[in-house]
Formats: sequence, structure tokens, C-alpha cells
Amino acid sequence: MPLLTEDAKGVYVIAVTPFLDNGEIDWTSVDRMVDFYEEKGVTGLTILGLLGEAPKMTSEESRAIAKRVMARAKVPVIVGVTAPGLAAMRELADSVMDMGAAGVMVAPPWTTKTDDQAHAFYVSVGEALAQTPFVLQDYPLTTNVTIAPKVIDRIVRDVPNCVMLKHEDWPGLGKISALRASSDKGETRRISILCGNGGLFLPEEMGRGADGAMTGFCYPEMMVGVVENYGKGDVERAHDLFDAYLPLARYEQQQGIGLAARKYVLAKRGVIASPALRKPGAALSPKDIADVERLLARQAKRLAEIEA
Amino acid sequence: MPLLTEDAKGVYVIAVTPFLDNGEIDWTSVDRMVDFYEEKGVTGLTILGLLGEAPKMTSEESRAIAKRVMARAKVPVIVGVTAPGLAAMRELADSVMDMGAAGVMVAPPWTTKTDDQAHAFYVSVGEALAQTPFVLQDYPLTTNVTIAPKVIDRIVRDVPNCVMLKHEDWPGLGKISALRASSDKGETRRISILCGNGGLFLPEEMGRGADGAMTGFCYPEMMVGVVENYGKGDVERAHDLFDAYLPLARYEQQQGIGLAARKYVLAKRGVIASPALRKPGAALSPKDIADVERLLARQAKRLAEIEA
Amino acid sequence: MPLLTEDAKGVYVIAVTPFLDNGEIDWTSVDRMVDFYEEKGVTGLTILGLLGEAPKMTSEESRAIAKRVMARAKVPVIVGVTAPGLAAMRELADSVMDMGAAGVMVAPPWTTKTDDQAHAFYVSVGEALAQTPFVLQDYPLTTNVTIAPKVIDRIVRDVPNCVMLKHEDWPGLGKISALRASSDKGETRRISILCGNGGLFLPEEMGRGADGAMTGFCYPEMMVGVVENYGKGDVERAHDLFDAYLPLARYEQQQGIGLAARKYVLAKRGVIASPALRKPGAALSPKDIADVERLLARQAKRLAEIEA
Amino acid sequence: MPLLTEDAKGVYVIAVTPFLDNGEIDWTSVDRMVDFYEEKGVTGLTILGLLGEAPKMTSEESRAIAKRVMARAKVPVIVGVTAPGLAAMRELADSVMDMGAAGVMVAPPWTTKTDDQAHAFYVSVGEALAQTPFVLQDYPLTTNVTIAPKVIDRIVRDVPNCVMLKHEDWPGLGKISALRASSDKGETRRISILCGNGGLFLPEEMGRGADGAMTGFCYPEMMVGVVENYGKGDVERAHDLFDAYLPLARYEQQQGIGLAARKYVLAKRGVIASPALRKPGAALSPKDIADVERLLARQAKRLAEIEA
Repeated sequence: MPLLTEDAKGVYVIAVTPFLDNGEIDWTSVDRMVDFYEEKGVTGLTILGLLGEAPKMTSEESRAIAKRVMARAKVPVIVGVTAPGLAAMRELADSVMDMGAAGVMVAPPWTTKTDDQAHAFYVSVGEALAQTPFVLQDYPLTTNVTIAPKVIDRIVRDVPNCVMLKHEDWPGLGKISALRASSDKGETRRISILCGNGGLFLPEEMGRGADGAMTGFCYPEMMVGVVENYGKGDVERAHDLFDAYLPLARYEQQQGIGLAARKYVLAKRGVIASPALRKPGAALSPKDIADVERLLARQAKRLAEIEA
Repeated sequence: MPLLTEDAKGVYVIAVTPFLDNGEIDWTSVDRMVDFYEEKGVTGLTILGLLGEAPKMTSEESRAIAKRVMARAKVPVIVGVTAPGLAAMRELADSVMDMGAAGVMVAPPWTTKTDDQAHAFYVSVGEALAQTPFVLQDYPLTTNVTIAPKVIDRIVRDVPNCVMLKHEDWPGLGKISALRASSDKGETRRISILCGNGGLFLPEEMGRGADGAMTGFCYPEMMVGVVENYGKGDVERAHDLFDAYLPLARYEQQQGIGLAARKYVLAKRGVIASPALRKPGAALSPKDIADVERLLARQAKRLAEIEA
Repeated sequence: MPLLTEDAKGVYVIAVTPFLDNGEIDWTSVDRMVDFYEEKGVTGLTILGLLGEAPKMTSEESRAIAKRVMARAKVPVIVGVTAPGLAAMRELADSVMDMGAAGVMVAPPWTTKTDDQAHAFYVSVGEALAQTPFVLQDYPLTTNVTIAPKVIDRIVRDVPNCVMLKHEDWPGLGKISALRASSDKGETRRISILCGNGGLFLPEEMGRGADGAMTGFCYPEMMVGVVENYGKGDVERAHDLFDAYLPLARYEQQQGIGLAARKYVLAKRGVIASPALRKPGAALSPKDIADVERLLARQAKRLAEIEA
Repeated sequence: MPLLTEDAKGVYVIAVTPFLDNGEIDWTSVDRMVDFYEEKGVTGLTILGLLGEAPKMTSEESRAIAKRVMARAKVPVIVGVTAPGLAAMRELADSVMDMGAAGVMVAPPWTTKTDDQAHAFYVSVGEALAQTPFVLQDYPLTTNVTIAPKVIDRIVRDVPNCVMLKHEDWPGLGKISALRASSDKGETRRISILCGNGGLFLPEEMGRGADGAMTGFCYPEMMVGVVENYGKGDVERAHDLFDAYLPLARYEQQQGIGLAARKYVLAKRGVIASPALRKPGAALSPKDIADVERLLARQAKRLAEIEA
């Protein structure tokens, strides 16, 4: 599998992990899910992230999932390898790169407080990972670490295997603009920027120079459509698609219950056999299900209107 | 002015504070803003909150704003009086109640950690405020204090002047359902629940038993329309309205830049003379303005479609 | 009263606020407390900080306390003026400087995340305060804002009225060393560094180049003694004194209960009439009192030994 | 090896992990360290905690360390198994119990906000661990989770394999008193309470009913001595010992640099071959070393005095 580079574009969907109702991994659904994402046009897959319920799995299960996904996927796979120490991170990274991963993703530890600490952390990550390309995961809402654009610029300058930013700062449109201004002026390498936060700002992020999305949503075709239409300059069409899916995308962004909603829809779409989250995990109440069903019905109607 | 009660319904809009370009308070715009909100059908006003830039004003200015708003408004006014200690909180509450406020709003201190601490805090607030009705502001994203539904039930039982919940937990639909289940079973008083978070879940919140909204948005008519249509049972119409405004409402929910967008639109609508935030405050970049203008144009088009 | 300068040395004690048992301010004790601190050799007083229970007072009471202390004190007085916005901060600063304060103290808002934000905040504080000298309060444990030594150096270079650092980072010995290295090399002004954290590292901090202490402890003579002995080169004597008081100083550093212990001892020493904290505030249990009494007895015995 | 029970008393020292200067595990020093702790009279060992640099090791190294320590130790060994999910926690717990551990230790996830959530978490831990006895690690300063005494009482009632509390709340003397009051009245089982926080409050904690200490310090004989003397009623002797070691214990409690100081002294005492921390880790500066050497010299002198 080719390695991840600064030129990556498109949608790297954050994959869910399918479980059976009894909590065991549903291997058949793993395969079907990979096929589904590829059919919907994603450029790559990102696995073993928080929303893939990675922390609930044993390390053996995590490796088994990674192996299965990479055996099945025709598109590049990025694997989350954030760990409390460099040794554990490198151990996991080496293992998944051996299986054929295209690259890995690393978030900063919550103890990172100053500009120099953030820079020093990613310098040591770059050294530890050696030839492995990696994604800088910038997600202040969860990590509680804010990395200013000029610090990202310093990291990009000093760490050649940092090839992608998973942009998930919020609000973050100005951050994309600042990073692109630096590379446009030739002050830094231009790395790939893929956006997270459930895609809730995807059209505006594309407008600022993002290269695509790296996030989850039960209709990956929304993200694919927005990115493609932006790419060919049809901005209004991108917004039309986005707006049609936005009410559901917003509902899916609720913490905890959001992942349950995502799996509910994926199960309803026939992608995974069971909507179950592994324990501990939220389940949809009848009222939640009624909400989702109304949003699905309205979404179908609206999509029909804009297709007409 | 009549006091706030458990029966409050509708939209208590979080008012902005209009400034001139030089940072001084724009008193003419204060009056026009009050009139504007009333013309759009709000039930009440909430002032001196975070999004009214209250922390940037001197205490003298805060009192002057409160006095001016209450002199102009025909609808009830709720005033934020959260303070680091009970003495300062009561001082401000007494002062605004003397001016004619309908009630006050109090958030818990971030040092609140356990169920009993949250309960004890609101018991002491209730005693300190004596006859003044107050709103329990439940906003974990900012206060970092999570108050479980059963703790709110205990507070409602033990603190008679707690008459309203500003519901801003996220995700929070299940919380509304739990609170309404308690009062439906007669285990607690039924208090008013108004919802925040920029109205981004307003239709679903109404569906769980909320009485309306207490939040800001540059088109208060959206919130009024959603609440009214839900009230008369036209759920689909409520969602149609909501969906038309959602792309802009989402944009306005960005921290910092969101308030700048709200004031930009209010200025464009002729409500306030200048979109300026007092320092320190964000300003819209040309790209931000282009985003907002596109959203406004698309919103106007979509509203025309659903009115047709 | 002369203004605070970079040359300040010695002990600026964080003063308590004496209350009567009924919660009212005990004005007689306020005067006696000022006299007591001066008799024990402090160089200055710091008032209206967190441990002076400032947040529990009305703004009128705060001003009255400031006026009373400054009328009585022969030593310089620094006043805490941290506020959520620049306007409120300047309002309070102007008011206390008019009363005769020597300077004011400002902590950064918890929203400060990056190096540039910290620098920008203190640049705007410096401008807002104009001619008023101020203390940069660096207290990450409470503010959750970490300011790297090189950022403090930038602030010192760019903000001439920043004349003192209240050093309360933890651990922070290396920070003092770094700051002194910069000024020794002539890269920055040498400002005054006074240390907090209850004095628990005072001898080592003096060894790194601190100019003294700004903190509270029921035996201010400990801090005065440590600073004086370090000043004249008698390091072992400084440590002897410190060690004798350390068990009690450690006990007083407990959050909440620590301030109750401080007031208990000050009341026992005849400085304040009542050990009461204003509500909400902790009170010592009989077991806590037994702990303090044992520590006092042991401390007296140990002091007698080292004086012998 | 017998399993951990509610009757555990004494000192379960938090063991360091010895590394060579090149960062590899120093197996010879591991053995010598186990012997050293046992010679100094500890009752047990706790391994794979944060201060054992566990997060910096690969999972293979962690298992190898656990195996080596348990092969060598004659005293019971407790192993930290906190993990982001129940499956990973159980996997690690099963593995170390098979090697002969006496029990495991589990801290709550930082997402725990309400009383019911803390209770529910430990109920599910108890079920997942089945027959394995475990220690509830209550460490709000790091986990950001505060568990009220009455919630601990509920957990103790409902989770039979919760046999010990690692008490590390701060301040926490009142918490021990409250827990002992419950079990004295027969309302709950009396579980073992061992105290952390570097032993800085150990004499007072023993006075409230603690059963000993579970923490690290380069002179474990201090903790053993305090616990033993308290046990036989010689409270003043316990305090004499404590006071002699307190200046160094305080220095060792600094985050980051404190562990470097602990290893420096252990290396100087001949227990471990190198004071090196694995990267990323702090190193002592020459000034830090001078501080530690002065404290060691003064400590030796003071110990000689009290032994005389």
C-alpha cells in the first residue's frame, strides 16, 4: 500500500466498529462496512479512533480489526496510534505499518501547555516514527491542547514526516486560512488538511483551502459530494447537498448518543448487522429513534427535491 | 413588572449589547434593539449574560444598561447575576429587581463537584434571593459542572423560588425527558424549561417537553416560529422553518466569531448601528463576511421556497 | 504612597479579611491585623485576593476594605484587580490607585491558550492601566494558564508597567532560574519576583534569585526570617527557621480548610477577634483543631530548640 | 500469593522502574529495588502506576516488569490496570493475576461527572473483575473526578471486591473521618484505606483512621516508621520522624522534577544503577542537585539529633 503524502485529498471516513448484540466483534459486518464506504466513494479509511470505540477493545482485538480492515480495503488506511508514551506509540505504529497501513495519526498529550512543548512533542513523534508518515490530530475540544497556526507551521518545517493535519479546532476557519497563507507564501510546506467535527463546517472549510474531510457520518456520500462539488467549482451545489443532510449531521454530533444514532442508521441501511455499541455505551431511547426517523424522512424528501 | 413563574413559555432572547465603533455603549441602538426583539414576537429578554458582553462592562455600565432596557421593554426581563460569592450576587439581584426585573439567572461555580454540592449551592442561592424568582442555568460546556436530572429534581423540591431551568446541557434531550417524567408523575413541581445552545436542537427539545428557548440568534423569528408551530402541533412546519435557518444558526454558534456574525447581521438588518464588539473581541475577516453573505442569500431563497 | 517598582524586595503578605461571627466585616480587627503584619516585619500588604475572601464581598465592601487598610498601613499595598474584562479591571484599578495603592495585580483569563494570547493579554493590560504599575500573577494551578519563561520575557520587554511577577507556578524553581538567566544576560529588564504557594518552597526559591514572598501564612515571621537570612547569606539559618514552621505551613496549604486553619491561629494569636470565614466557607472540625494544636505545640518546642 | 483483603495495613510503596542510561530497562536494578523496599519494611509493592513510568513502556515491557517483580517479591504486589475501556482493563487484570498479583488498582475515567456515574462505573468494574479484589484509586487532582464519601460508601456496599481505597483526595482528612464514621456505625464494610500524595499528610491521615500509605518516596523507611509508631501509639515519635523527612518529601512532590529527584536519591543510595528517566522525562539541573544535596545533608543531621 502506498504511503500517505502531503497530496492526500478527499474523504478519509472515520470507520465505526461493528459489534454483535452480545458485544463481540461482527467480522462479517466489518467487511461489508469497508465495501460500503468504498462504494460511496471515500478516498480512505481511518480506524482505531475514539468513535471507532477503540478504547473498549483489547489490544489483541484492535490488531485483529486493523488486520481485517487492511486485508479488505482497496483504499489507504490510517490508524490512530495515540498513546501515553512514545514507546507504546511506536510499538503500535510499527505493527500497523507492517500490516499495510498508509500512515498513522497522533494527538498531543493533555499535559502540553506552551508553544514550545507542542513543537517539542511532535519533533519527538517525528523522530520516533522515523519513515512513517503521520497525521497531526488537532482536536482542542477533547485534548484540551490548543496549537496556534504558527506552531503548526514550525512543526511542518521541522518534522518532514508530518504530512497531514486533521483539523478539528473549533472554531477553526481562520486557522485554515492562516495555514494556507503560510504555504502560499512559500514559508512552509503545503500539507494536506482534512477536516473533522462531523463535517458540520465542511463547505466553509473547503472554501478556506481544506483538501477534504476526515470524520464520520452515516451518509458518507454527503462528504464525498461536498468535496467533489467544491473541487469542480460548483459551490452552490455543494451547499445544497450539505444543507439537505445538515439536520441529521447535527443530531449525530451529540456526544455519546450521536454514535448510537450513526450506528442505528448504518444498521438500517444494511451496512452493519446490529446497531449495538460495546459497553459502556449509550443506546437510543424510543424518543431518540423517533427523532432520527423524522430526520431521515425529511432528509429523503429534501434530497428528492434538490435532485429533481 | 410581574415576577417570573413556573408557567413561563416562549422565547426569552439573549440580547446583545450595542456599542459604537469607538467602544462606547450605543444607547439609541439599545432602544431600537428592544423594539426589534418585541416586534419579532419574543416573550421576554435576558440581559447581562456572557453573550451580551457583560464581563467587558464596568459595574456602572451594567446597571445603566439594565435600567435602559427595563425602561423600554414591554416584555419581562431576566438578568444574569452569577457572581463569585453570595453577597455580590444578592447585591446585584436586589438592584435589578428594584429596577423592575422579572427574575434573575444563576450558574453554579466551577468548584461544584458532587451532587450534594450542587444541591447545597442552589439551596443557599434560594435563601439569599429570598422572594426573588430565579433561573437555574445548567451549562456544563462553560461551567464544567454537570447536574444530573435527579439533582435538579431535588433542587426544585427544596427551593421554591427556582422557577425555571435554562437547559444548556449537551447532549441534553434525554435530560428534558427525565425532568418531565418526574413532574408528570407528580414527584416534583413542573418548572419552566427554556433551551439554549443557540437553538440548534430547538425542534427536538420542544418535542421532549421544553417550554421554549432562551438563547440568541440574529433571526429571533426562527425561534419564535419553531416554538409557536410546535405549540399548535404543526411539527413539520416547525422543522421547515428551523431547517431554513439552520446553516446560519450553526455558523453563529462558533465561539467568539459567532457573536461577531450575530452583530454583523443585526447591523445589516438595521437593528444596531455598528457591528463592533467591545475589546477584547473578535472581528469578522473578509472571508467570514463572504461566508455569512452566502448563507444569508441561500437562507432568503430557501425561506421564499417554503413560504411559496 | 510611592508606586511599586522592579526593585521591590521582601514579604508582601496576602492579608486575610476579618469577619465577625455573624459574617459582618470586623473593622477593629482589620486595623489590628495591619498593625500585626507590620510588627512582624512585612514589606507590604496584598489585599482583595482569593484568600482574602474578596469574591464573597459586595463591591462596596471591597472598596471599604481597601480604603480602611490603606488608611492604616505604613507599608505599600497591592490590590488584586483581576476581572473578566478590561473595563471592569481598569475601573477597579483607578479606584484603588486613587485611594493610595502602590500597584495592582492581574491574573490571565482561563481562556488564554497560546503564547501569543498570553502576550497579547498583558500588552492590553499594560495599555489599559497606563501609568499604574502591575504584578503579573502566574498561577497555573488556579488559572489553568501556563506562561513559559520566554513569554514572560517578551511581556517584560514590551510592557513597561509590568514590574513584578507573583511566581506561583508549580513546580517552578526552573522558571525562576530561566527568568534570572535572561535578565542577567541583559536580554530583559530585571523585574521583582515574589513567590507564592504558601511559601512551601521559599528557601529554594530565594536560592534561585527570587526577591521574596507574596503569600499568606499565620506566622509571617517565618517568611520574613527566611528572606532576611537568605539576604545576608545565612542559608542554613534560613532553612532552620523554614523547617521549624514547615509542618504547619503544609497543613495551611490545604484548599478551603487551610484558610480556616490560618484564621484559627490568627485568632488564637489575638490578631483577629473571630476565626469565622464568611459563607460559603469551611470550618475546622474538632479533629482539625486537634491537628493544628499539636502542630503549634511541636512548632513552639522546635523553635525553642533552634533559638537555644 | 494470597489475595488482597479489607484487612491490609502498612506501606504499599509505589515502585519506580529502573532504566539504564540508554533508556532500556535495568533488570538487575529491578531485583535490587525489590529487595531494598522489602529490607526497609514495606508491606507490599504497587507497580505500573504513573510514577513507575508505566505509560512510557510498551505493553510487552509492562508485562515483563510485572513478571520480574512478582518473581522476586516476597510481599504482595498490586498492579495498576486503569484503561480506557473495561475490556482492556480486564485483559490486563487477568494477565497480572495469573502472574500472582494480590490485586489491581482502578481510577475512574475523567468523563465521570455525577454521583451515579461514579457508582455505576465501579459497579461495572466490580463485575468485570469478578473474583479479583481491587483498589479504588481516588485521585481528583489527576483524574479530575471527585467522589464524595457517601458515594464511596455506596460503592463499598454494592461492590464486594472493592477492598481498598487509595486515598489521594486533597484536602482529604475530613474524607477519611467521614468514611470511618460510616463503617464504625456499621453502615458499610470497613475497607482498607492507604494514603497517597507523597505521604505529605501521613501522620494526620493515620490519626483519622487510615491503615497506612500507598505512595512513593526515596526513603520508604519514613513511611514505615510513621505507620509503625502510630500503630503502637507513639504519635510524637511518628511526627518526629515525619518532620525530619518532610523537607525532602516536599521537594520530591514537585511534578516531573520530583520523580527525577526520587531516582537521584535511590541511585545515590545504591538501589538503582542510573537515575535516568525514560524519555520524555525531566532531568535534574545542577541547581536542583545542589538543592537535593543540601536537603539530604540537613536530613541526616536532623535524624542523628532525634536518634540521639
